[in-house]
Amino acid sequence: MSAQPVAQPVQLPEAWFNVAPHLPAPLDPPLHPGTRQPVGPDDLAPLFPMALIGQEVSAAPWIDIPGEVLDVLRLWRPTPLRRAERLERALGTPARIWYKDESVSPAGSHKPNTAVPQAFYNKAEGVTRLATETGAGQWGSALAFAAALYGLECKVYMVRASYRQKPYRRVMIETWGGEVVPSPVDDEDHPGSLGAAISDAVRDAGARADTHYALGSVLNHVLLHQTVIGIEAKQQLPGGEQPDVVIGCCGGGSNLGGIALPFVPDADTRLVAVEPSSCPTLTAGRFDYDFGDTAGTTPLLAMYTLGHDFIPPPIHAGGLRYHGDAPLISNLVKAGRMEAMAYPQGKVFEAAVQWARTEGTIPAPETAHAVRAVIDEALAAKEEGREQVILFNYSGHGLLDLQAYDDFLHDRLDA
Amino acid sequence: MSAQPVAQPVQLPEAWFNVAPHLPAPLDPPLHPGTRQPVGPDDLAPLFPMALIGQEVSAAPWIDIPGEVLDVLRLWRPTPLRRAERLERALGTPARIWYKDESVSPAGSHKPNTAVPQAFYNKAEGVTRLATETGAGQWGSALAFAAALYGLECKVYMVRASYRQKPYRRVMIETWGGEVVPSPVDDEDHPGSLGAAISDAVRDAGARADTHYALGSVLNHVLLHQTVIGIEAKQQLPGGEQPDVVIGCCGGGSNLGGIALPFVPDADTRLVAVEPSSCPTLTAGRFDYDFGDTAGTTPLLAMYTLGHDFIPPPIHAGGLRYHGDAPLISNLVKAGRMEAMAYPQGKVFEAAVQWARTEGTIPAPETAHAVRAVIDEALAAKEEGREQVILFNYSGHGLLDLQAYDDFLHDRLDA
Repeated sequence: MSAQPVAQPVQLPEAWFNVAPHLPAPLDPPLHPGTRQPVGPDDLAPLFPMALIGQEVSAAPWIDIPGEVLDVLRLWRPTPLRRAERLERALGTPARIWYKDESVSPAGSHKPNTAVPQAFYNKAEGVTRLATETGAGQWGSALAFAAALYGLECKVYMVRASYRQKPYRRVMIETWGGEVVPSPVDDEDHPGSLGAAISDAVRDAGARADTHYALGSVLNHVLLHQTVIGIEAKQQLPGGEQPDVVIGCCGGGSNLGGIALPFVPDADTRLVAVEPSSCPTLTAGRFDYDFGDTAGTTPLLAMYTLGHDFIPPPIHAGGLRYHGDAPLISNLVKAGRMEAMAYPQGKVFEAAVQWARTEGTIPAPETAHAVRAVIDEALAAKEEGREQVILFNYSGHGLLDLQAYDDFLHDRLDA
Repeated sequence: MSAQPVAQPVQLPEAWFNVAPHLPAPLDPPLHPGTRQPVGPDDLAPLFPMALIGQEVSAAPWIDIPGEVLDVLRLWRPTPLRRAERLERALGTPARIWYKDESVSPAGSHKPNTAVPQAFYNKAEGVTRLATETGAGQWGSALAFAAALYGLECKVYMVRASYRQKPYRRVMIETWGGEVVPSPVDDEDHPGSLGAAISDAVRDAGARADTHYALGSVLNHVLLHQTVIGIEAKQQLPGGEQPDVVIGCCGGGSNLGGIALPFVPDADTRLVAVEPSSCPTLTAGRFDYDFGDTAGTTPLLAMYTLGHDFIPPPIHAGGLRYHGDAPLISNLVKAGRMEAMAYPQGKVFEAAVQWARTEGTIPAPETAHAVRAVIDEALAAKEEGREQVILFNYSGHGLLDLQAYDDFLHDRLDA
């Protein structure tokens, strides 16, 4: 192996990787909240186009990406795979740290990878308007971007704490022509949560025939669309470079799933989910059927959960403030195929600043959770004097989260 | 020529393009403000390293880029050259619009292209601290980024109007370890200007032996470093694609110079500078010797100027609020080799939103001036029914300027 491996050129994948056939245990089906029987396509049809409902339950190992979707993804994909050599030197570690840079998308995160196909499939089936929720705003801005490119209307229910704390993402949504309101819509004093915003958006979509709902994480088809990240990364890693560990931050699980699911069949590769200590779904939640939203209107999902009425504290990594986790991620953690760890935000921002001053880019607070875990893995490798290949998902930049850095740098951040 | 030309792969250039041998008329030398005699290297040595002073007056057609500089530029270069096909379709124009995407740098603009070599040459000559000015913050954040990567201290004097209007760029500077204060330092009620901030920074550097000054635009060596943009673009354009017109926004002239100077020898290619109507240096200024700063401490430069005491209104494109222009750009405009035009900011933001909703990315307010001119060129081509190849510099993203979009979208923007 070369001492200075360089990422390989790569083509945009033409199919998504479906992890379903590779799961260690069968996936528990979503249940109807009234009957507690498995939901069928007809139950979901008011909310989603049939193409996505089909992907949600598909057992096919690969699913073709439509050409019209590839045409838009090509605006920023394939994304770069880079080696963090400056960070390696600063840490004095023998580990080799690779990162997949999903921050280069127009919305600045991995979220457009699924926003684009969701907008496409909805438009193809005659829907003209999408409703969704957003936490920190990454998903809402990504969907507004995709809706603009396909000429769809877009209504975004934004967690009130983020709406107030992060006005710039609201402006992004509006710049792309979307409409955004703070959630919950019926309680102006409530800081909001992803679960409550989902309730608002589902209610909107259920009430209008021209409108479907779009979810930015958790569901199988969302994680499916994100697998372009891991598929590209596998091709970009130089010959012989097999990751010992793949790391991603985890809120609902979409960016983690995107980079990790294609590595599930590789038994020698560890998979690691990193979450905030203040919303420790995988590390301190229970595995159970629970609602995806606060109001209890969605199907029941088999997942790790803190309870659908859990309101996490308003930490800066708004994208990680979710009471549950993707059933696919929960399945892997429950079976022992994926590990999970949690960090307090003070340690996370320490890592983020170290990254910025060595690698030069400023990560999103969510992404910084992965950076923290990567640094600790690399320091452990140094301690033990072993080579290690670390791959992680640089899921988004922090240029719209600089208030959090300001708080950290001036000692105003809750640990 | 193919109907769907695709940008070619490209290597990072290993030398900068020096336009000096290609100028239509000799460059007027900078003059000492006291004696009005041409300044010599000794006059500049308290402020700049000898390597940069040498580049300032070099007649060599190409100047090698040091390997240590290439190692850092490689973090984000070569930058993509993309075709704006969605915008073309929306305009219904036969023009082909190519753009060089400089927004992908860690600081989000073209500015690191010169911040990196400036930090490198200063460090190589034993300097441990840099002082500079910044308008909207692009240059200050770029220099703080470069200083962090070379382990230098960095002090930034930020135009007060931007310091207040754009706190996020201050946070970027601090995240990279730089120190930032509002300018002018001696008048808290003054909105500031680039010229006044230059005075502050030059004073700082002159007073400390460990400190040099770094300028983000105007000077020959700065424009030289930016020519990587145009050199790459020339190589990336598909075979047979020769730009009929090259467009860039112009404040001090560095991003425009970066893309346009390598095309100066191509007589059939028009070169166009776009500036704000509220700071119309090239379109309404006079060509004369004037100071680079407000206090009259810099050498006298031969350039278009609105007078060194001109204080432009606080428009959102802070990077274009400069009373003068690069001598190289001024020379080209005076000789008729380059055209200049000016737009009011309302028309500029209209273009920016049209770009965001078709091409998907949100341009910096400065960059949006170029977008406005590009759209008008493409519409003129449509009117006249002629094919036209347009190349422009997408000099930075607007993710830290979303307040300006908010003002525009909600009718709070001065026209």
